[in-house]
Amino acid sequence: MRYFLHLAYDGTDYHGWQMQPGVTTVQQELDRCLSQVLRQPVYCLGSGRTDSGVHASHQVAHFDADLPDGLDLPTLLYRLNRALPVGIRGQVLHPVPPDAHARFAARARTYEYHVRLLPDPFATRFSLYLDRAPDLAAMNEAAAMLVGTHDFTSFSKVKGAEKHYNCTCFEAGWHLEPGGLVFRIRANRFVRGMVRLVVGTLLSVGRGKMSPAEFGEIFRSLSRVHASGAALAGGLFLCRVEYPAELVDAALLPAGLPYFKA
Amino acid sequence: MRYFLHLAYDGTDYHGWQMQPGVTTVQQELDRCLSQVLRQPVYCLGSGRTDSGVHASHQVAHFDADLPDGLDLPTLLYRLNRALPVGIRGQVLHPVPPDAHARFAARARTYEYHVRLLPDPFATRFSLYLDRAPDLAAMNEAAAMLVGTHDFTSFSKVKGAEKHYNCTCFEAGWHLEPGGLVFRIRANRFVRGMVRLVVGTLLSVGRGKMSPAEFGEIFRSLSRVHASGAALAGGLFLCRVEYPAELVDAALLPAGLPYFKA
Repeated sequence: MRYFLHLAYDGTDYHGWQMQPGVTTVQQELDRCLSQVLRQPVYCLGSGRTDSGVHASHQVAHFDADLPDGLDLPTLLYRLNRALPVGIRGQVLHPVPPDAHARFAARARTYEYHVRLLPDPFATRFSLYLDRAPDLAAMNEAAAMLVGTHDFTSFSKVKGAEKHYNCTCFEAGWHLEPGGLVFRIRANRFVRGMVRLVVGTLLSVGRGKMSPAEFGEIFRSLSRVHASGAALAGGLFLCRVEYPAELVDAALLPAGLPYFKA
Repeated sequence: MRYFLHLAYDGTDYHGWQMQPGVTTVQQELDRCLSQVLRQPVYCLGSGRTDSGVHASHQVAHFDADLPDGLDLPTLLYRLNRALPVGIRGQVLHPVPPDAHARFAARARTYEYHVRLLPDPFATRFSLYLDRAPDLAAMNEAAAMLVGTHDFTSFSKVKGAEKHYNCTCFEAGWHLEPGGLVFRIRANRFVRGMVRLVVGTLLSVGRGKMSPAEFGEIFRSLSRVHASGAALAGGLFLCRVEYPAELVDAALLPAGLPYFKA
């Protein structure tokens, strides 16, 4: 039987999502704890990777397992959370068809990047602190160029295994929130390091080091050498992975509770 | 010269706001760090106390001090934050008239109590976790009885130094948010332990242990023996202290930045 696990994690202490030898990753902790609780080897596959130090308020992984007789899903989720480190928590667990794939079935991912403009004792590990407000209008003029289907080579980290660098971006913009700003970007897919490179370069625009027009030139150059440095990992959250309604919607709305920010 | 300091703190590691012998409090840390940075004895007076373990996303304190020649307020705030423990942060600092009083000039205080209904790795120290959703409509039917001017003896912790138990409550209600609920209460003043006793008793209503009518009887009984136990301290935030506009409004809105939740 195949299951979708919806989870959240504080990425501060992990070398990202993806299993890697010699370091602790979120996927590795999940596999270890699911295997322990289910007493069989379990391997998770996530909707996508998050980089070292990046957080997720919503990540989705699928795994195949045979549940022991009499073990129901709420009890499994409870035991999993007792086994997991405090920084990783399963939130919703439900069966899916055997061919449902956490990565290939995902239609869109949303990331948020948090900037604090006031010293904030609650957000030290979850935001970038700036002591001067960046130019919101200039950053949003530049961010608007990202919307649509484009080649994001200019904002990709490494020329790696990716077949192509085209992403369809549905939304990209900065919003005021109390004491700070948040950048939200929603797209069908993301290439490696993309959000932090986009944010770092938009912040250069916000600081007046670069004009929106120059941002556009960098974007269209399809060269990885012009972007600004990647923004601090701790400010970034994977905050929503979207699937076709028949796969997850009923599972996510128990008792009228909202699972996501409106 | 008198100053208002607007600050935020993670109350987990402190025995509340108020100076007490033998334990570490937020006020004590502030006095120690302000005195160190200003090289003179400085004593803060807060808008009100918060209990042990309770947080503040907005607290205000006044203090009197002579700033050394050439020391401007942004530099003082920066140095103060370098001296303070990471869980306490000054956010805005501005001069006020010599008779402006952080406690007596405050017109309203707002508290929020956070309940999570999904395991949340980011809110462990900042919320109460419930594994079953309480009855929101019943809780709000009861909460509505709090609005207006009433004697809150039934929801006060100790018969102490307070002259009277009358509070004018402008707003009291539960709201859905992603993965949980938040209770918001705004009043001209609060008696000791009031919010946590109100929340604990409202949660009894939400669990079906008590009807809204029984909640009303407890409220009107003016006896401290009927309320439910106080809700966990970690879920409670002092989140806004309001003053007459001429005292603070200009200071709080640099560059169009929102300081509070709408």
